[in-house]
Amino acid sequence: MKTGSFITHKICSAISIRNQWVREAMAELLSTFVMMMFGLGAVAQVVLGKKEFGQYLSINLSFGIGVTMGIHVAGGVSGAHMNCAVSLVNCVLGKLPWRKLPIYMISQITGAFLAAVIIYFLYYEALFNYCKGNFTVTGPLETASIFATYPQPYLSIGGGFLDQVIGTGALLLCILAINDKKNFGALDGTQSVVVGLLVTVVGMSMGMNSGYAINPARDLGPRLFTAAAGWGVEVFRAGNYWCWVPIVAPMVGGLTGAFLYKLLVGLHLQPNEEEKKLCEMEKGNPEMVATEYM
Amino acid sequence: MKTGSFITHKICSAISIRNQWVREAMAELLSTFVMMMFGLGAVAQVVLGKKEFGQYLSINLSFGIGVTMGIHVAGGVSGAHMNCAVSLVNCVLGKLPWRKLPIYMISQITGAFLAAVIIYFLYYEALFNYCKGNFTVTGPLETASIFATYPQPYLSIGGGFLDQVIGTGALLLCILAINDKKNFGALDGTQSVVVGLLVTVVGMSMGMNSGYAINPARDLGPRLFTAAAGWGVEVFRAGNYWCWVPIVAPMVGGLTGAFLYKLLVGLHLQPNEEEKKLCEMEKGNPEMVATEYM
Amino acid sequence: MKTGSFITHKICSAISIRNQWVREAMAELLSTFVMMMFGLGAVAQVVLGKKEFGQYLSINLSFGIGVTMGIHVAGGVSGAHMNCAVSLVNCVLGKLPWRKLPIYMISQITGAFLAAVIIYFLYYEALFNYCKGNFTVTGPLETASIFATYPQPYLSIGGGFLDQVIGTGALLLCILAINDKKNFGALDGTQSVVVGLLVTVVGMSMGMNSGYAINPARDLGPRLFTAAAGWGVEVFRAGNYWCWVPIVAPMVGGLTGAFLYKLLVGLHLQPNEEEKKLCEMEKGNPEMVATEYM
Amino acid sequence: MKTGSFITHKICSAISIRNQWVREAMAELLSTFVMMMFGLGAVAQVVLGKKEFGQYLSINLSFGIGVTMGIHVAGGVSGAHMNCAVSLVNCVLGKLPWRKLPIYMISQITGAFLAAVIIYFLYYEALFNYCKGNFTVTGPLETASIFATYPQPYLSIGGGFLDQVIGTGALLLCILAINDKKNFGALDGTQSVVVGLLVTVVGMSMGMNSGYAINPARDLGPRLFTAAAGWGVEVFRAGNYWCWVPIVAPMVGGLTGAFLYKLLVGLHLQPNEEEKKLCEMEKGNPEMVATEYM
Repeated sequence: MKTGSFITHKICSAISIRNQWVREAMAELLSTFVMMMFGLGAVAQVVLGKKEFGQYLSINLSFGIGVTMGIHVAGGVSGAHMNCAVSLVNCVLGKLPWRKLPIYMISQITGAFLAAVIIYFLYYEALFNYCKGNFTVTGPLETASIFATYPQPYLSIGGGFLDQVIGTGALLLCILAINDKKNFGALDGTQSVVVGLLVTVVGMSMGMNSGYAINPARDLGPRLFTAAAGWGVEVFRAGNYWCWVPIVAPMVGGLTGAFLYKLLVGLHLQPNEEEKKLCEMEKGNPEMVATEYM
Repeated sequence: MKTGSFITHKICSAISIRNQWVREAMAELLSTFVMMMFGLGAVAQVVLGKKEFGQYLSINLSFGIGVTMGIHVAGGVSGAHMNCAVSLVNCVLGKLPWRKLPIYMISQITGAFLAAVIIYFLYYEALFNYCKGNFTVTGPLETASIFATYPQPYLSIGGGFLDQVIGTGALLLCILAINDKKNFGALDGTQSVVVGLLVTVVGMSMGMNSGYAINPARDLGPRLFTAAAGWGVEVFRAGNYWCWVPIVAPMVGGLTGAFLYKLLVGLHLQPNEEEKKLCEMEKGNPEMVATEYM
Repeated sequence: MKTGSFITHKICSAISIRNQWVREAMAELLSTFVMMMFGLGAVAQVVLGKKEFGQYLSINLSFGIGVTMGIHVAGGVSGAHMNCAVSLVNCVLGKLPWRKLPIYMISQITGAFLAAVIIYFLYYEALFNYCKGNFTVTGPLETASIFATYPQPYLSIGGGFLDQVIGTGALLLCILAINDKKNFGALDGTQSVVVGLLVTVVGMSMGMNSGYAINPARDLGPRLFTAAAGWGVEVFRAGNYWCWVPIVAPMVGGLTGAFLYKLLVGLHLQPNEEEKKLCEMEKGNPEMVATEYM
Repeated sequence: MKTGSFITHKICSAISIRNQWVREAMAELLSTFVMMMFGLGAVAQVVLGKKEFGQYLSINLSFGIGVTMGIHVAGGVSGAHMNCAVSLVNCVLGKLPWRKLPIYMISQITGAFLAAVIIYFLYYEALFNYCKGNFTVTGPLETASIFATYPQPYLSIGGGFLDQVIGTGALLLCILAINDKKNFGALDGTQSVVVGLLVTVVGMSMGMNSGYAINPARDLGPRLFTAAAGWGVEVFRAGNYWCWVPIVAPMVGGLTGAFLYKLLVGLHLQPNEEEKKLCEMEKGNPEMVATEYM
């Protein structure tokens, strides 16, 4: 074993990637993939299992725990944003260089797309058994909503936009608070669980109108997959061209929520002792700023 | 980015508020707002979604996690009471100056009011779709109970008073224990989650009689909103003028619960080593006493 | 405030009880009271609310979180056993003096009795509304099982005895592991939550046969209350004199579970560095052994 | 007590086993036993109680918390793998010597077998009451699926193989991340809870097709028990000889998931300060590598 271990170590060192950009892109992709795999899997299980294998609560919990897992997967590399709106807010707050934003977004959308692919194959036979191969976006046996979000019949585009702004605003407001060391932040190493609870509660309290996308990547990636995999362009037209709302509104909402937290609480906090020491340390290691979680 | 970050920093410093009173008021307002937004959102989702998007458990969980989030939002500034009864007990225990009590209460009620406003707009179309614009306080399609609490038909005012005393008593008794460093307090940075579990269990075990307000702000803020937003003065008359009970009884209950904990356990604890050191530190920084959580 | 705070401090010091026995008795009483209040409250809410305000899961969660809260209430004083079987195992392991065992048991049973009193008054009107004042131990509208546990019709006394042995065995086996610093114990300050999860899972997996008393105090206290409060001696006769099983079997089970853990894992662990240092400290403060949690 | 405690200590020392292999085998056996006892108990409770005492969610939660408990039982001795696929991945990663792999596997399968025995006796009367002593593998009153996993009627062997590969892949990918100190690992002493959440989410999102064995021991142990206890060889034949899939596919899946994490994230992480110090320490105590969790 010793020798084998040594060889393994050699190989590992040889293929280890030092380029920070590539590492962050891969981390964002994998964490978003993990989060969405659990989230979409739970939706599929509830829909295809006709609520025998889970109910709305299990969808809320799965997206929540999915986020917890995603944070562990990429938290030490890219910050595990897994959400274009989170990355945008990080740019505005100066915690992520603007030039990295497109890389993050593309990685996130790709990760969500690949999660949809995996869930499609995982539940391919169940899906076929459920809708007899007839992939529809509307109707009683529609299956498009397993992947992307669609609004309730009563919801207008304006109401849906507000819905996404409020949901993402609540998300970012709380994420900033949870990670604010100058305030009452979550204990280091447990932020993943607390952010998971946050995503769960957003789903339990703001999920009815349109399925709480609150994340452009979460919605666009799987929607692109369904368009390609047999549901067709109807996935973009449905809900009065709903598809652009979960892309644009979360960006607006995320900024609003972050602004609200900073304006009412965050800006007025004095750095505590621990924070000051951390600042000193970071001066000698500027890269840490980019890799810390939020 | 460097320059932008520098300018941002300058602006932030300029608008940073040093006044402790204003900061605490804003923190109480925002934390109560966040907590109530998640809580009321979950009630709305259960009622308007006819239990398709959550059940009673998701209401319990949402108020619980809402409290968790609120503690992260304001815990480092005001202690994140989010509850007039909690603030009152803090005053009696000498942890909050009496002269700050009205500010805290007003901030909390305002935060809860604003949360009701946001949830009203978030679910405006769902609400209209559910009751066809007919906002009633009683009847099968009543929607007032999304915002404020109302007693079950079998409940007398006396029984309801006792209900609120017991519920708030249980709440404060446990909050004191969770934050008691001389006892077996929760780990620093995880109190938010444990208090969230506490609020969840109060709802699961003491919620049936009257919807566990256990907090004057949680009930009065949204009730005032409904009175103004179209449900009318009936919101005050309903349940044999129930509305005063969730204001007065939690005050009595909170004091009772705190008294019980102190009498049977808290008073007899000896300060441990860590506590003694903290005491020394606090002598040099008296403000910390006011800003610590409970 | 300063003066008031000073006077309060004086009064507190004056009535502070130094007697360790009295303090431990009061702590056991209050923690068992809190745990049972949440647990019984949840059962009452599920039964009287006809599953509209919670389901079996909310009972499991409430007993679990109730234990979490109880541990915070008394963990630093008595170890928060809240269970005669836990106290017995502690005696056998040399962590609780045998002469304290009766005090602990009486305090626990009294705490559980008082919790039944509180829940009776909390839900008095709901109870009356449900069974029209007809308090029965059997039949479709029986309400005795809100307080004490009763076996399913299919269960024999022998099967029920085994049920309680296994349930309490699983409980104690895991409690020892969770608190074993030489093994992979839970992080200090979070044991309360992990033990809460443990009690929840015992209810979800071993609750069907007879309602998982797994604790003589949990069953006897409320049963005595129901006997006195109008359900009569039938509470002792029901289920072929079931009432002695949840008293005796958990004692046997607790010892079995603890023995199993010690035999297969606990005895063979070497003290780690941290443990050794703690041992040194404890030599100078022998009382700590009795007051630590398990 | 002092004398008794001393004698106890003597006895304990005398029977304490120093052989690391035996200790690890016993720890794996007991932890797998505990995990499976809670998991199988919950399935039995849901099936035999006809969803009155739990639903699919309580099965997911019970396996999850069962894993949490198992980690506390054996985490400090064997790493608490409780899963042949986890042990295999540990061997490949050089964290477990290959020659220990058969011991781990046999201990895990034996632990799962014994858990099936206990649950069989715990619910023997309920089982008999449910199926009138007619133990069948198929049909409306089948009870074999309480113990081992069986595929849905729509599932092909190929689809089931993929299902197990994906489920176990997701499991191992996340376990590696949760325990990766160079990344954003879970706080020490809380990994048990986070891994418990992980197993819960796998069940909520990937459980419908075939009951998420994702572990050869979890499936084979109880299946052997049912074959011997009256269900007969049909347990191997059912589902087109399904029984080999949960043995082979998790091995493939576990390696795939671990490979994916290492390739995209793990390999490119630089050791942090804490990690470097740990490495230094471990050089002087090589045994620690084998006993750490993952």
